Amino acid sequence: MKITDIVVTPIAFTDPPLLNAAGLHAPYALRIIIEIKTDEGITGIGEIAGGSSVLDSLQKVKETIVGMDPFERNAIRLAIDNKFLSVMDSMSVGYGHRNVAVRMFSAIDVALFDIIGKAVGKPVVDLLGGRVRDRVDFSAYLFYKYEGAGGPFGFKRNPNATGWHKDKEEAALDPDGVVYQAKAMCKEFGFKSIKLKAGVFHPQVETDTILALRKAFGESYPLRIDPNAIWSLETSIKYGHMLEGVLEYFEDPCKSQESMAALRKEISIPLATNMCTTSFGEIPSDVALGADDIILSDHHIWGGLDATMQLGRICSTFGLGLSMHSNSHLGISLTAMTHLGCALPELSYAMDTHYPWQSEEVIKGGRIQFEDGSLGVSNEPGLGIELDYEQLEKLHQNYLNCGIIDRNDEIEMQKVNPDWTFASHVY
Amino acid sequence: MKITDIVVTPIAFTDPPLLNAAGLHAPYALRIIIEIKTDEGITGIGEIAGGSSVLDSLQKVKETIVGMDPFERNAIRLAIDNKFLSVMDSMSVGYGHRNVAVRMFSAIDVALFDIIGKAVGKPVVDLLGGRVRDRVDFSAYLFYKYEGAGGPFGFKRNPNATGWHKDKEEAALDPDGVVYQAKAMCKEFGFKSIKLKAGVFHPQVETDTILALRKAFGESYPLRIDPNAIWSLETSIKYGHMLEGVLEYFEDPCKSQESMAALRKEISIPLATNMCTTSFGEIPSDVALGADDIILSDHHIWGGLDATMQLGRICSTFGLGLSMHSNSHLGISLTAMTHLGCALPELSYAMDTHYPWQSEEVIKGGRIQFEDGSLGVSNEPGLGIELDYEQLEKLHQNYLNCGIIDRNDEIEMQKVNPDWTFASHVY
Repeated sequence: MKITDIVVTPIAFTDPPLLNAAGLHAPYALRIIIEIKTDEGITGIGEIAGGSSVLDSLQKVKETIVGMDPFERNAIRLAIDNKFLSVMDSMSVGYGHRNVAVRMFSAIDVALFDIIGKAVGKPVVDLLGGRVRDRVDFSAYLFYKYEGAGGPFGFKRNPNATGWHKDKEEAALDPDGVVYQAKAMCKEFGFKSIKLKAGVFHPQVETDTILALRKAFGESYPLRIDPNAIWSLETSIKYGHMLEGVLEYFEDPCKSQESMAALRKEISIPLATNMCTTSFGEIPSDVALGADDIILSDHHIWGGLDATMQLGRICSTFGLGLSMHSNSHLGISLTAMTHLGCALPELSYAMDTHYPWQSEEVIKGGRIQFEDGSLGVSNEPGLGIELDYEQLEKLHQNYLNCGIIDRNDEIEMQKVNPDWTFASHVY
Repeated sequence: MKITDIVVTPIAFTDPPLLNAAGLHAPYALRIIIEIKTDEGITGIGEIAGGSSVLDSLQKVKETIVGMDPFERNAIRLAIDNKFLSVMDSMSVGYGHRNVAVRMFSAIDVALFDIIGKAVGKPVVDLLGGRVRDRVDFSAYLFYKYEGAGGPFGFKRNPNATGWHKDKEEAALDPDGVVYQAKAMCKEFGFKSIKLKAGVFHPQVETDTILALRKAFGESYPLRIDPNAIWSLETSIKYGHMLEGVLEYFEDPCKSQESMAALRKEISIPLATNMCTTSFGEIPSDVALGADDIILSDHHIWGGLDATMQLGRICSTFGLGLSMHSNSHLGISLTAMTHLGCALPELSYAMDTHYPWQSEEVIKGGRIQFEDGSLGVSNEPGLGIELDYEQLEKLHQNYLNCGIIDRNDEIEMQKVNPDWTFASHVY
């Protein structure tokens, strides 16, 4: 089988005014839908974070892999490594520089697995060694947010939007607001654990928010907080102590493996990261320093599905836990995450997903439905999902019309608070 | 698909009087042929080291996995882990205790991949991410040895034996003898690199043997020596210095990660191991100490084919090289090693194989032929080989008749030198 073409479609979908350490989500989130075509008529699909440099790089990927056999994933990886040799990027907010090659192989790996699964008549989970669980648990991903989908932006939500938040576009700017959001989200999706995206308000407010969640939900709901490394080591220690016995894990409170390692010696809460360690190259110093207890992987970042299985082996080898990070995404990514989560022996926590915050879809059948906060995968070949080309075209038109070509949460925040800058926002 | 049965056939095949640190090879080497049957009529085959405790454990494996789906390799691994929880073994000479579960999953993993490949119509290499190379290089595996196949044992070689050594059963008990052996083996198989199994004679003799090989073959033939950890640290430093600039790598000269790490600080030759680090559990201390430069994997020991791919990722993550260890084996293992070697991006050296020392086969078509010291794999589904049941039965009868149920090189050596003991044999 030969790869004959890669079709790259940038899309934009409506996104609520969610707050984070980097600023504010824009009215549209960017994503790119990838279709890899073959000479046997089989097409594989994938989905990755959008952005102009990603679009540029995908053109180089196309030049590199057209003509190769989709089963030769190892050779494709080496070819992409070679193509992007030593090129560095700053494609993604909050992650710093990262080797483009790994991001680019990540971008196509799900589509390759989709092709392979369709070619051999097996679901992707079986290509990863098969299920160790039938369903994957996800956590409620809470955000501080402004009211409504438009709020200060003068933006109107797509009137056809569906999803839990359609009628629940309350603001969540304090502990009470977040508890309300958590109850609504858990009721709608059945989530059994809760993550709060923090790094927005004073650490005392955010700590109080976690304590309010504990009071509202009790001890049976594991809680996590993620200040996106915006807290200093001292702040992390201070508020970490207040959260001992309350948090399931403490996600990236402070920056750098060194700070995380120092924090880890001071507090008893397990530390998780998708910021201080985001690539295989950072693993040796991570384990040497003892920077964390749990790696939050992401197949879009670590090099695809098989690479994440390999990361799982590294985690079990070094006594680390494993869970999954998420970005704003649609159903192709969610389905790939679920195949992976069903196969990963080392997955030890409910996975993150932004999916509840989105209301649109690009796959046939529309929005994926959670049951009791979890998802399974079908036994259909490949990912078991198909593109809805009408929806894809609609979201592509959104992309062309929305005027956003790169994510920049700082600029969005400056529309609300003109003096706000990312650098000043450190506790 | 469901696993319906595991057929376990112990075999014995003729083995020359090869010397090593543990003593002397017996006239027969033991191996076990595994056939995993399924309800869809597909059978997968595998081959592992023999021994009575392995046979016992395989019975437990059978009880555990009959009824499971061969595609669910992750779940099968967990089920076997659970079955053998905390059981330790001493199945194999020279390796110490090792978790039986890993050995048992290793025992069946190749057969599972063979089934999966046959079910989906793809060669095993494609199930491992496809080829990064079309052919895998192997090294000439030299041994000090006694004359003939029988020699002091009164044992007669199977008159139907084939193979390069049939007419070359010279002794090799000094540098000249080993050089003769190396020339014969490299001429017959085309090998381009040479490994000497050492730990037999005084280190000066073995060092002289390497220097004689260098003189005979020149600098273009990478050379390795493997004293099987029988040298002290001081001896390893002393003779290591004499071999600087001569060896490609120095394999397990001394025992323990600590000694290897200390040696590594003293000499400039890369250190390789299949003794101080033979499981994922030993990797953290290996990398913390800096015990070696190259892991010599073995899919029979590290947990199968996919586990070896994961070990490859660990090696590249920690800047370690990767090559392959071997034991006496036949064509099923050789074919599995070749599929793996074709797929492994991190494979950085010619692989070891004992195959030239064997003369019998259990697969149809007879002995596998090397070309220029290398092998490729076909695109036939699965391993692409079939059992020759007539040969299998013959070698099974050998097993029943030979009176050997466990490998013990020390006892064989004592037939020649009654006072010889393993413990005393340390330089």
